[in-house]
Amino acid sequence: MDINILRHSTAHLLAHAVVELFPGTQLTIGPATEDGFFYDFVAPRSIKEEDLDHIQARMWELSQKNYPIEHKQISKDEARVIFKDNPFKLELINEIPEATVGITIQGDWIDLCRGGHVACTGDIKHFKLLNVSGSYWRGKRDGQALQRISGTAFFSREDLEEFDRIRQEAALYDHRKLGKQLDLFSFHEEGVGFPFYHPKGKAVINAMINYLRHEQDLAGYKEVQTPMMLSEGLWHRSGHWNFYKDNMFFCGMDHENYAVKPMNCPGAFLIYNERPRSYRELPLRVSEFGMVHRNELSGVLHGLLRVRAFTVDDAHIFITPDQIESEVLGIIALLKRVLTKYGLTNIKAFLATRPEKAMGSTAIWEKAEAALKAALDKVGMAYEVDAGGGAFYGPKIDFKFTDSLKREWQCGTVQLDFFQPENFDLTYVAPSGQKERPVIVHRALYGSVERFFAVLLEHYKGALPFWLAPEQVRILTITDDAIAYGQDILNQLKAMQVRAVLDQSSDQISAKIRTAQVEKVPMMLVLGKKEVEHNTISVRTLDGKQEMGVSVEAVKQKISALR
Amino acid sequence: MDINILRHSTAHLLAHAVVELFPGTQLTIGPATEDGFFYDFVAPRSIKEEDLDHIQARMWELSQKNYPIEHKQISKDEARVIFKDNPFKLELINEIPEATVGITIQGDWIDLCRGGHVACTGDIKHFKLLNVSGSYWRGKRDGQALQRISGTAFFSREDLEEFDRIRQEAALYDHRKLGKQLDLFSFHEEGVGFPFYHPKGKAVINAMINYLRHEQDLAGYKEVQTPMMLSEGLWHRSGHWNFYKDNMFFCGMDHENYAVKPMNCPGAFLIYNERPRSYRELPLRVSEFGMVHRNELSGVLHGLLRVRAFTVDDAHIFITPDQIESEVLGIIALLKRVLTKYGLTNIKAFLATRPEKAMGSTAIWEKAEAALKAALDKVGMAYEVDAGGGAFYGPKIDFKFTDSLKREWQCGTVQLDFFQPENFDLTYVAPSGQKERPVIVHRALYGSVERFFAVLLEHYKGALPFWLAPEQVRILTITDDAIAYGQDILNQLKAMQVRAVLDQSSDQISAKIRTAQVEKVPMMLVLGKKEVEHNTISVRTLDGKQEMGVSVEAVKQKISALR
Repeated sequence: MDINILRHSTAHLLAHAVVELFPGTQLTIGPATEDGFFYDFVAPRSIKEEDLDHIQARMWELSQKNYPIEHKQISKDEARVIFKDNPFKLELINEIPEATVGITIQGDWIDLCRGGHVACTGDIKHFKLLNVSGSYWRGKRDGQALQRISGTAFFSREDLEEFDRIRQEAALYDHRKLGKQLDLFSFHEEGVGFPFYHPKGKAVINAMINYLRHEQDLAGYKEVQTPMMLSEGLWHRSGHWNFYKDNMFFCGMDHENYAVKPMNCPGAFLIYNERPRSYRELPLRVSEFGMVHRNELSGVLHGLLRVRAFTVDDAHIFITPDQIESEVLGIIALLKRVLTKYGLTNIKAFLATRPEKAMGSTAIWEKAEAALKAALDKVGMAYEVDAGGGAFYGPKIDFKFTDSLKREWQCGTVQLDFFQPENFDLTYVAPSGQKERPVIVHRALYGSVERFFAVLLEHYKGALPFWLAPEQVRILTITDDAIAYGQDILNQLKAMQVRAVLDQSSDQISAKIRTAQVEKVPMMLVLGKKEVEHNTISVRTLDGKQEMGVSVEAVKQKISALR
Repeated sequence: MDINILRHSTAHLLAHAVVELFPGTQLTIGPATEDGFFYDFVAPRSIKEEDLDHIQARMWELSQKNYPIEHKQISKDEARVIFKDNPFKLELINEIPEATVGITIQGDWIDLCRGGHVACTGDIKHFKLLNVSGSYWRGKRDGQALQRISGTAFFSREDLEEFDRIRQEAALYDHRKLGKQLDLFSFHEEGVGFPFYHPKGKAVINAMINYLRHEQDLAGYKEVQTPMMLSEGLWHRSGHWNFYKDNMFFCGMDHENYAVKPMNCPGAFLIYNERPRSYRELPLRVSEFGMVHRNELSGVLHGLLRVRAFTVDDAHIFITPDQIESEVLGIIALLKRVLTKYGLTNIKAFLATRPEKAMGSTAIWEKAEAALKAALDKVGMAYEVDAGGGAFYGPKIDFKFTDSLKREWQCGTVQLDFFQPENFDLTYVAPSGQKERPVIVHRALYGSVERFFAVLLEHYKGALPFWLAPEQVRILTITDDAIAYGQDILNQLKAMQVRAVLDQSSDQISAKIRTAQVEKVPMMLVLGKKEVEHNTISVRTLDGKQEMGVSVEAVKQKISALR
């Protein structure tokens, strides 16, 4: 059986329990999700985290009563009578195109439902409620505010326990917790959903950007910077207005309306169009570490994983149709190199192909899809095909990796675009002298720098690798006699642009080491009398290993190798 | 005689000529400015650049008529009769606190005027009209739109000619022109006042930021990043609302009003207040390359010199009152080091001291001013004192330098602040265990990265020094046989993070060199048959000097020395 059926049935069990415990509750919808289910309610009083145990206990009772779960089709008019007091269900009934609608009955409880359930409530045994949050009817910010209870369910106790174990481990290494512990970033009510990077967090962000900037430079990318705000007319032209306006921020300026950019694309197109382009310039790889703002619902914000302002490691690559395969091959190779640098090696690709409604000729779609497949094959990357799942303007590849907590994350995307070159009248002069349309590749490797940072923090449980660590080296003096020597080493490391700090406090060396370990500093240089005398260093790493009598030169070489 | 008297008199001569040529013109104000004068009008038709010659000719005629210039005091009622058709003058008359007002008469022309003129119109001989622009009554964007004619005047022909020469030279090296010629940046109507950095411009901006980031790291600064938008309430608290709201952009979010930050300060204060601070942490130097947005009037926008979005190399330094002198000394030393790196050595300081209305005790003001003076003296920097010119919340030092076209530019500022620590309730735990208030130093060295970039472009006439040049090295192959060798050198330079490009086109080497010179590439590596054979390089610099037979290792060392 599909686990979604079990989970959707558990959502019903939850709704059944809530209606019994909170009479007068109005039900809305309760679908299965990627790793569980939820149900959204309008309850007569606010439901709290503390209520979940009680609700779960009632769910157990209903499970043990082992009601058969009956599903049947009834006329819409019959349904309207049953749900006459529930405006949400009445709205749903009106929208169903068929003449009849499905209902589900267990005991004396009834819900409007398309169907797909376990046979009896007793089949639902291994479930857990997880949290309460706020939501909106149909996910729209101007819709009715609802309360959402989320949970999960499995076929076996072992699966539920494994889920719980991973969840607890993830909670232990929740990036929000690590962000506070390691003094990396904070959030403030004066800027809901906007991260404030503290010096250590900013050091990591800078390292991430500088590393990719260098890799992209080697790969022939050219970095630009486009404005944070652009006029409303441009967003109409680009089509973002229609799809995105509810998530965009607007400012008035010169009696015009400006939008804070939710995407970087239009700025790149204006730069492309700044002067005539020749085929000799293609592929033209225009990159931007562009900060975008999106007005996400406050209920879905989640640390750095879901913010209202984030930096996209964006690139817009202008190519001829013949360059698709070689360019995508280059992008995938770069993606692999970059993820490997971050210790992420388990990468899967998902190829989304031509949907029914699509623009551009069948010929170019076929050519493009064949080119994407060929590139994936050549680089030897496993992929699944989502047939018909592409956007109307071109096929795309999404990339996902699995982290150390076995969770899958989407990061990079390669999206071909046949639409915007027409829309912005982008051209290049072909060898024939004729003007031709380029194809655009939209590309990101991290996706969102903020989100990627959060994932890395959890993946590494806070102990970032040397090259990425906010503080890479801490110099610890055992006695005050070693301070001058420590200062000298500090200066040498700083000149090498190593992120180094000198702890010359009067604390005991054991306490200093403990502090550095808690703060996850990957390399400690311990300096005492002997080290000063012999001009050496005791090198200690986060795993507790210590190497004595290392020369300064050897330490520098060690560090250079780790960067 | 004060040149401002001559220039103000020339503004009158201009107004006199305009009223004669454009009957019905309403006069507003016509002051002397730093290097000339202007007069703002409401004319019956739009005045164009083409009209300036004609107006200037009429000014000549009026000068040659040598009218005596008479100034006298009359009653306000008499003045109201004279200016009865001019609402601007009537408004000005009402605002004059004295019982009488001044008027100036030359021939049959009269203006309301405080006084200070040359004796006769014939004394005005060496003048020039420069341009026409738009302005607003009282400089307010909701005021009446006016036309402004600007010009200048000198006592001697030589001075006017020198002014003209420098102006023409400046026009030749106008950064807007260089920006286009060198493909550095552009402006677009979709984002008025917002620069679009092309790859070469972005390379310079990155070099400027990375250089200062490293210097600041060595000087103990810690970089943060705060959001682009913060809630309206915070700007009320910081006081920016009162002074700045007309220049701020606002967005709605979560039923609140958010402001796009016009300054970086409040974000830094929130980070300071994120946890308790100890005296051991002070001086705490919090830096941010923070992009701020200000809604400047479209009429005052001027390339990168005056934009609506710019990056401040900001720092907020939290210190004890005893640390003022040593901290300011450190800042001035850093400023000197940084400006020297940019080839700017002619630096002057301007110390603005306690105004009449000021907050904080006299004792702390005296201590602070003495500390600022002591720091300037110790570092041996010339300074002028602007007595009483400080802000109410603390004294400050402004720094100006003179560029190669002999123009003075303000860049850095050191502003002490006794107000915001109270306002944001910032404290640190003193050695006694008591909570104390820190003093804040607001500090910028570039000021605006955009503006500093513009000034550098003009100062260097586009030929930026090696370390700053967008493209540092161009490798030019004489024959195709040299391409593989060139590629190898390119890879070696790129690995060193040198901004290098290989020109392997089939153009003649002389044409390649000419192109590189026009594009102001500071170093050209010319590779022909002989170079490939001997594994050497011909090194050519922008001044036309060429050195043959240099080894690759020697070229790398040359480059390392230039960075």
